[in-house]
Amino acid sequence: MQIEGKNQVLEAIKNETTINKILIDKNFASRKDDVINLAHKNQLKIEFLPKKILDEKSITGHHQGYIAETVDFEYSSVQDILANPKNENAFIVLLDGIEDPHNLGAIIRTCECAGVDGIIIPKMRACQVNETVVRTSVGAISNMKIARVTNLKTAIDELKENGLWIYACELGGKEIYSQNLTGPVAVVVGSEGNGIKQSLRAYCDDVITLPLKGSVNSLNASVSAGIVIYEILRQRESKNK
Amino acid sequence: MQIEGKNQVLEAIKNETTINKILIDKNFASRKDDVINLAHKNQLKIEFLPKKILDEKSITGHHQGYIAETVDFEYSSVQDILANPKNENAFIVLLDGIEDPHNLGAIIRTCECAGVDGIIIPKMRACQVNETVVRTSVGAISNMKIARVTNLKTAIDELKENGLWIYACELGGKEIYSQNLTGPVAVVVGSEGNGIKQSLRAYCDDVITLPLKGSVNSLNASVSAGIVIYEILRQRESKNK
Repeated sequence: MQIEGKNQVLEAIKNETTINKILIDKNFASRKDDVINLAHKNQLKIEFLPKKILDEKSITGHHQGYIAETVDFEYSSVQDILANPKNENAFIVLLDGIEDPHNLGAIIRTCECAGVDGIIIPKMRACQVNETVVRTSVGAISNMKIARVTNLKTAIDELKENGLWIYACELGGKEIYSQNLTGPVAVVVGSEGNGIKQSLRAYCDDVITLPLKGSVNSLNASVSAGIVIYEILRQRESKNK
Repeated sequence: MQIEGKNQVLEAIKNETTINKILIDKNFASRKDDVINLAHKNQLKIEFLPKKILDEKSITGHHQGYIAETVDFEYSSVQDILANPKNENAFIVLLDGIEDPHNLGAIIRTCECAGVDGIIIPKMRACQVNETVVRTSVGAISNMKIARVTNLKTAIDELKENGLWIYACELGGKEIYSQNLTGPVAVVVGSEGNGIKQSLRAYCDDVITLPLKGSVNSLNASVSAGIVIYEILRQRESKNK
């Protein structure tokens, strides 16, 4: 889908519509207008193109130099995720700043395969759902609830109030295989470069760690998320047998 | 490192030196010479550039229009991998046609973290070790033995003769958590699009499958390899306790 016209694009950004990129008349590139400022603030991709190309892409014929290409995806709320009516223990994944859309897409795919209730991501300094994420998730995204929140700590408070135990997945914690993960849990997975922010890690109930037998001290973010998510699934499946 | 000169580059390809890409004078692009033919046959990347740029890149000053950029990596043999003197049960990973260098790099990283003895890849129709693989493995590659073989079946014969049990990781097999994976094992992981070739799957001793609770029927290749590899590690660790 696409949204055309200056005010329409501005409203779409303010309403947190899932925007893949914004095409702007390249003659406006040196302006510091509202759309450009707000797009930068929200870390949206901007492409400056000749007016002629925008004319060709325009469906309405009234783009005014601004076209936002949107993604057909609606975010959920944390409450939506908690309301998952599967009559099983809650199982939620929080991502603290995943930056690579391929990793985000692969994690969404893993969560869908493992029956995770939903994913919570931060609004800022993290990859949002875009076309690459949708493509990499190979369809999983349409079955997965994803909430984006201003503050992961506030979301964790809400999960704690609902009886979930919050595990940070990081180095230096308790070995994951020694933990009982069959109750209502949320796991926090860190970003590719920096792991989980120290203050957020301290906010979790426990830290769980994968064993590392080699000399490299970390796994790829989507791989380690996958191993942790499937260990939780394994424990639940074996408990139910 | 780089190799310069027509015959030198030709020899490097024949000797299976790990080549990232071959730079060729763009005036030769329409020729069907030995280097271009052999490079195509070995699925090596060619970049046709102006002679001036090759002159700038040349260290010897005698490039003759051909420079091969090589990767500082030496493949092992299957025997090298089997000779790993860790005094533990063998643990080997075979990749049947992984195409994406990011996936190959991530799998190498996981194998190193999990203490896998070595990886076996096919020479044809599969991603070889190149610069992207080295970068994505974040250093793991220098601690991991990788053998490339003409025929995965011959390699499997060699593993079977050495007492390994060969598991294909695919849909429709026995649930992985019901299997005892603590003995000497090799696991075969399929390609991103097509999984494991039917004839190779039939050549394995058993098929193991990850549970899938959603509607998407497969995981990302490097994620599913990671989950399987860590399940083997988990079983071995808990056996040793």
